[in-house]
Amino acid sequence: MASESGKLWGGRFVGSVDPIMEKFNASIAYDQRMWEADIQGSKAYSKGLEKAGLLTKAELGEILCGLDKVAEEWANGTFVQNPSDEDIHTANERRLKELIGETAGKLHTGRSRNDQVVTDLRLWMRGSCSALSAHLRTLLTTMVERAEAEKDVLFPGYTHLQRAQPIRWSHWILSHAVALSRDLERLLEVRKRIDVLPLGSGAIAGNPLGVDRELLRKELNFSAITLNSMDATSERDFVAEFLFWGSLCMTHLSKMAEDLIIYGTKEFSFVQLSDAYSTGSSLMPQKKNPDSLELIRSKVGRVFGREDKEAVFEVFDTMNSVLQVATGIISTMKINKACMEEALSPDMLATDLAYYLVRKGMPFRRAHEASGKAVFMAETKKLALSQLSLTELQTISPLFTSDVSQVWNYANSVEQYQALGGTAQSSVDWQIQQLRGMLRTLPQ
Amino acid sequence: MASESGKLWGGRFVGSVDPIMEKFNASIAYDQRMWEADIQGSKAYSKGLEKAGLLTKAELGEILCGLDKVAEEWANGTFVQNPSDEDIHTANERRLKELIGETAGKLHTGRSRNDQVVTDLRLWMRGSCSALSAHLRTLLTTMVERAEAEKDVLFPGYTHLQRAQPIRWSHWILSHAVALSRDLERLLEVRKRIDVLPLGSGAIAGNPLGVDRELLRKELNFSAITLNSMDATSERDFVAEFLFWGSLCMTHLSKMAEDLIIYGTKEFSFVQLSDAYSTGSSLMPQKKNPDSLELIRSKVGRVFGREDKEAVFEVFDTMNSVLQVATGIISTMKINKACMEEALSPDMLATDLAYYLVRKGMPFRRAHEASGKAVFMAETKKLALSQLSLTELQTISPLFTSDVSQVWNYANSVEQYQALGGTAQSSVDWQIQQLRGMLRTLPQ
Amino acid sequence: MASESGKLWGGRFVGSVDPIMEKFNASIAYDQRMWEADIQGSKAYSKGLEKAGLLTKAELGEILCGLDKVAEEWANGTFVQNPSDEDIHTANERRLKELIGETAGKLHTGRSRNDQVVTDLRLWMRGSCSALSAHLRTLLTTMVERAEAEKDVLFPGYTHLQRAQPIRWSHWILSHAVALSRDLERLLEVRKRIDVLPLGSGAIAGNPLGVDRELLRKELNFSAITLNSMDATSERDFVAEFLFWGSLCMTHLSKMAEDLIIYGTKEFSFVQLSDAYSTGSSLMPQKKNPDSLELIRSKVGRVFGREDKEAVFEVFDTMNSVLQVATGIISTMKINKACMEEALSPDMLATDLAYYLVRKGMPFRRAHEASGKAVFMAETKKLALSQLSLTELQTISPLFTSDVSQVWNYANSVEQYQALGGTAQSSVDWQIQQLRGMLRTLPQ
Amino acid sequence: MASESGKLWGGRFVGSVDPIMEKFNASIAYDQRMWEADIQGSKAYSKGLEKAGLLTKAELGEILCGLDKVAEEWANGTFVQNPSDEDIHTANERRLKELIGETAGKLHTGRSRNDQVVTDLRLWMRGSCSALSAHLRTLLTTMVERAEAEKDVLFPGYTHLQRAQPIRWSHWILSHAVALSRDLERLLEVRKRIDVLPLGSGAIAGNPLGVDRELLRKELNFSAITLNSMDATSERDFVAEFLFWGSLCMTHLSKMAEDLIIYGTKEFSFVQLSDAYSTGSSLMPQKKNPDSLELIRSKVGRVFGREDKEAVFEVFDTMNSVLQVATGIISTMKINKACMEEALSPDMLATDLAYYLVRKGMPFRRAHEASGKAVFMAETKKLALSQLSLTELQTISPLFTSDVSQVWNYANSVEQYQALGGTAQSSVDWQIQQLRGMLRTLPQ
Repeated sequence: MASESGKLWGGRFVGSVDPIMEKFNASIAYDQRMWEADIQGSKAYSKGLEKAGLLTKAELGEILCGLDKVAEEWANGTFVQNPSDEDIHTANERRLKELIGETAGKLHTGRSRNDQVVTDLRLWMRGSCSALSAHLRTLLTTMVERAEAEKDVLFPGYTHLQRAQPIRWSHWILSHAVALSRDLERLLEVRKRIDVLPLGSGAIAGNPLGVDRELLRKELNFSAITLNSMDATSERDFVAEFLFWGSLCMTHLSKMAEDLIIYGTKEFSFVQLSDAYSTGSSLMPQKKNPDSLELIRSKVGRVFGREDKEAVFEVFDTMNSVLQVATGIISTMKINKACMEEALSPDMLATDLAYYLVRKGMPFRRAHEASGKAVFMAETKKLALSQLSLTELQTISPLFTSDVSQVWNYANSVEQYQALGGTAQSSVDWQIQQLRGMLRTLPQ
Repeated sequence: MASESGKLWGGRFVGSVDPIMEKFNASIAYDQRMWEADIQGSKAYSKGLEKAGLLTKAELGEILCGLDKVAEEWANGTFVQNPSDEDIHTANERRLKELIGETAGKLHTGRSRNDQVVTDLRLWMRGSCSALSAHLRTLLTTMVERAEAEKDVLFPGYTHLQRAQPIRWSHWILSHAVALSRDLERLLEVRKRIDVLPLGSGAIAGNPLGVDRELLRKELNFSAITLNSMDATSERDFVAEFLFWGSLCMTHLSKMAEDLIIYGTKEFSFVQLSDAYSTGSSLMPQKKNPDSLELIRSKVGRVFGREDKEAVFEVFDTMNSVLQVATGIISTMKINKACMEEALSPDMLATDLAYYLVRKGMPFRRAHEASGKAVFMAETKKLALSQLSLTELQTISPLFTSDVSQVWNYANSVEQYQALGGTAQSSVDWQIQQLRGMLRTLPQ
Repeated sequence: MASESGKLWGGRFVGSVDPIMEKFNASIAYDQRMWEADIQGSKAYSKGLEKAGLLTKAELGEILCGLDKVAEEWANGTFVQNPSDEDIHTANERRLKELIGETAGKLHTGRSRNDQVVTDLRLWMRGSCSALSAHLRTLLTTMVERAEAEKDVLFPGYTHLQRAQPIRWSHWILSHAVALSRDLERLLEVRKRIDVLPLGSGAIAGNPLGVDRELLRKELNFSAITLNSMDATSERDFVAEFLFWGSLCMTHLSKMAEDLIIYGTKEFSFVQLSDAYSTGSSLMPQKKNPDSLELIRSKVGRVFGREDKEAVFEVFDTMNSVLQVATGIISTMKINKACMEEALSPDMLATDLAYYLVRKGMPFRRAHEASGKAVFMAETKKLALSQLSLTELQTISPLFTSDVSQVWNYANSVEQYQALGGTAQSSVDWQIQQLRGMLRTLPQ
Repeated sequence: MASESGKLWGGRFVGSVDPIMEKFNASIAYDQRMWEADIQGSKAYSKGLEKAGLLTKAELGEILCGLDKVAEEWANGTFVQNPSDEDIHTANERRLKELIGETAGKLHTGRSRNDQVVTDLRLWMRGSCSALSAHLRTLLTTMVERAEAEKDVLFPGYTHLQRAQPIRWSHWILSHAVALSRDLERLLEVRKRIDVLPLGSGAIAGNPLGVDRELLRKELNFSAITLNSMDATSERDFVAEFLFWGSLCMTHLSKMAEDLIIYGTKEFSFVQLSDAYSTGSSLMPQKKNPDSLELIRSKVGRVFGREDKEAVFEVFDTMNSVLQVATGIISTMKINKACMEEALSPDMLATDLAYYLVRKGMPFRRAHEASGKAVFMAETKKLALSQLSLTELQTISPLFTSDVSQVWNYANSVEQYQALGGTAQSSVDWQIQQLRGMLRTLPQ
């Protein structure tokens, strides 16, 4: 019968495993990045086996020495891969056996591949989180220092890309720094949940050979051990959390990049990117494109919807570059104070005009309406809002008196926003202090 | 010229705002759920205005009293919506004005819509997180108690849906409980970041009227205040975090549901859902479908890729039902101990057979190979692995002696896994203690 | 034993089905939109039963008449829902039974719920695709006519938001119209795959009662019938295709909206939205925000990652509004020809300057470099590119002669792009003709 | 002032472009796959330049000959990359210049990088779609032939993973083949939209040098040319369509894999994978895991949410492997007819029992209820449904007579489903004919 030989439908290859399937299944092309973590994990596990009586002291010595040699080969770039090495774990054990012989076969006693993979991944990611948090700190420090240095520059705050209210340039910088400071906090929380030892969980039932997981934990410097062996080998919450962290942090960097792209257009002319972060056009000789900012924006997509190790590596590489490029952009970008201040226009003080009336006792909703009428009157007469005469304003409300002229001052307007978190100088200083304090107190 | 009238291309309506656009823009259909948060926020803000001298004590009294009346109408279901109420915030203020007149117009002084929306949303979500964490605790407690009660039941642990090793049924329950306990921890972290007051941030520049944000914080019982007014009104990280939390928690519930669907097939017959969580077929009279489990699985998709408030409401509703249904399923489901134990088969002890040889000094890699040969020999002879004679085993390795018969005992096998996190009774007890401890010590 | 009663772990409700579960399972809140499709499907199916001898002519008459009455109730808004109506299909059959008695019970003979649901959904979506394609045609027609009317307006084409080359305003409009014309083509393809009859597939095995599926197809005016009964009742490829169509179309509308938001900033001032598509700020009296455009952008997220019927309804509603709002925006928006032409600057002709040298025999790569030097020279001297003297240009290349002055003409520059698809008048006319032709020939 | 030097905030590198930024921007690591398409595109474009008078015949000869040499180097693996080659396009032009000197600089006249990139990508993808459609045809042919050969095998059809109705094994195979046949249709539609020439669109304004796009189209064998130059260089709808195609096709393969994983469990034992598509466990000697099927399932995630070229390459590679592996699995998998038929149980004929009553005149809803009562009675008495005596059945309905015994025949049950698309032999034959016809008539 057809189903017995399977050949009726043309089995497409001869031999034991379909070579496409083998290639499909192999992960060494990307997981070799974890070679160091894999050596560390195996060294710790062999100590556990020795303590449990499954290795003699001499065998332990052989294995540790052999693993050090394998590590040396990776470090020197002399490790030679073998076509049958399907992943970093089999590659290292295959090489260990070549170096020390049969004893190598004892290393995997009671350990499953999943046990080993997830331990290696947690070790690798713990280090990666530290690298990323260092880059993020550098970026934050750069932003905070720049905010401190340029506190006196005023420019338009926008909502819906329409000019809204005058604010400090530093207030804009800090709005992005505050978002990134949450990313730093979250990264440290993710790191905390990565820093848990799964080794000693076996395939699903646990470890039956008396291996002391507390010893493994100390050897590998983890903060805690996993609670359930089935969960430990299969769960990848920490990967999902890391990817989510990457996507949120990229969203913040992308928003900042989007603002800077617009502020750098000829029409806005507020900022100018360093040549180091710009590129030209192969066709149009005059072009200087903000490619670095656009690449930051385009990388947002990269961190979503991936899976497992490959995704982790890709997100790490992306964040690792992006955080450094962002620091470079922010530290070298020039601003054009003159253009910024020219862009402030009296209609942006319409809210202040309403507050003027509020201070004279008018309910805000009516004051908003009155100020709106003034805006309309100015537009109709093709005047700036500040150019309306007192008489004209008084046709809208008798509460207007000559002191209304004091409204038309951008610096005064900005100085009003002294509630915590606002754009007044004192409040901007407070924000800078808060962020500096956070950078000092958060764990490295 | 064409562009002046706009009529050349057939402007499709007369009047000031395109009615489709109005409908497109309105959110009251879903944001009315936040009515209570909106009232609370406005009450606090009016106290802030009074302290800042922008409301008299009498005006404050009027406003508070009016807001209480509005709240009463919502609570009684007598609040009448108006077609022009575009969101809950305008609806409440419109009604307040009808009740107390012009003074209502002072309430919005220095407050922007964004300021108000984000405050209301954080208030609402703070309460929602509490409700969800209570449901999650109930589910966890149910699972832990069931694990405690059914510790003696053994059944097959699976990997790749193939029988792997004998484990305790409680070990399976706890593997899912441990995953859900991480969800509880994460939910409390999200709640912590939700619990930050944005009110007093204005549109973007901050609050210019001397409103005391610390007073607002105390009134609304927030733990901290936001650092930067631009960031405060625009950031929705806490929404993204909540949605991510939902997606991860649903992934865990979905995995558990997937296992139970398979364990409930005729072919496995390990568990039987209560009728309360099953449905029939409109066509096939004999069918009893595990619809509750399938709905849990299908809801995973729901919590991804949504935006802002609507997504928050939908995820809350989903999680709110799902956690309760899951508790119901777990607490009423019957298990079939006989079927479970029948499903244990000697080939699942092949790892133990390898360990037998390891204990006699053979390196694991070679013991794995020897045990594999025994499996193949048994298959070829159409015998159970445990039915191979000692003589037959000795053709594979001379290390086999008569004590190999002690391998063929599922209870002994399970008892070996005493390393922390394993499936031995002591280790399962330890897991139960850990989870009970966590449930006691985590904040409510 | 614990697992027998299930009460040890606190079964949380009494009675046959957990009420949360019932609510969780119900879909009538949204699927009642398909009431008409459900009636149509049932009328056709009862004709099929009559032909197969399972209904008498009299019974058929009763059923058809009863279904018409149910339809009338829905149309008049007098249909009264019952708490036990879990979906539109059970609601209609329940009502039919109240109206005509026992005979109603024959309607479902050999039909499964899935059979019915998927038939109804295809009927409903077929109509929805027609409605959406009509709106899309209107939008396209508006855009093409506007492109025709404003062909003479030149303005800067941007890449990377930096000024690139002068183009016609109509060329910009048509670039978006061409993208939308692909959406129209794709919508018609999706409609074609929706227009296939599944009815007569039963639960999974098919229909065993001799129902003539060709008769059903004709009654419901489908173009084809499904091939395999298992696939027919479970596949939702057409839903995925419709959602993908929505996401791609929204991406195009979103890109157009993004351009218009930027063109409408104070800094660009190229276009001005009609008041009908703008909104104000609750705090800042001068604001006029392009909310309609922002809503279009924000709706992109909505159409991803949803599931089944609810997603279809939501995407339909979104696209239905968005296409009409987009038509309104395009037909009423004013352009500012003066601002557009002022924004053209001589550096945008740097490519033309390179072509000038190419025409005199210099390889393009060198001409690009020479023109780049001229740009740099002009920037250094703070001159416009066109203000460099011939002597100055000749220091860069001796190929420059007095005819270089002819390069500095935006209209001439634009007229060069006569290759099909370019921005020259003839090419823009060709594009308009192509789109008009397509709108004429595509099926309605 | 701070913003002038940029050094106050610690510019982090010296020199013209941040090296991280350069690496960030480079794409040659993956886009070198398009080397052949890039050569083809450049050869065609140089012919266009010659016809437009911008190259002499001799120059054209030099360029074509040089490009052929570059191609040869790629084909032989002797092309040496240069660290400054940021993408395949600059690499090829750099090499051409080394080979033929200055004339190479004329090749890019009037062509932009985007123009070139999108042309190359369409050329490459056109070829890829052809490769994939060939693999998909092979898979479909294998499935159809297997369905033909194993038509006589009956087994349980499942809904909700509960046994539903007896069906043919071939009916199951064909349900998946029909889904895959839609994927083939869609792939050909995507290919049609890929097959449109963008070359000659320049940066955004078009081509100003009289290049004949119709000549380019013929040279590169495209079916049509793009309509608008701005749209042509920026749109990637065809990429989104290809990725969507991949995700839908993978969803179908994943569903099939999921069924086979379950059918391959010890508990079901319906099918047995070839060793060529199975893997073992590093810990448990007895394990044989269906890794190939699990890899197919896990690849679903891979094709979502990626961007542009890298995503296209990855999806192509994934689909290219997956379609071949799936063909291998299907052609070598063994089925276990005995287990399949043992799994058929009398309760799966409960629908037939209801139809028995329908044929005797009872309305289906009541017959469904009567049959349900019989199921309940059998369960209560711990009998198979077919073991109820006539007397017992008659307590439920007097319509039962001795001919009810004919219901208990699986083969007869299956034969009833003769409506098109059903599981009767004639209907399965019809499906096979339809698919074979489609495979014959669809373009290669």
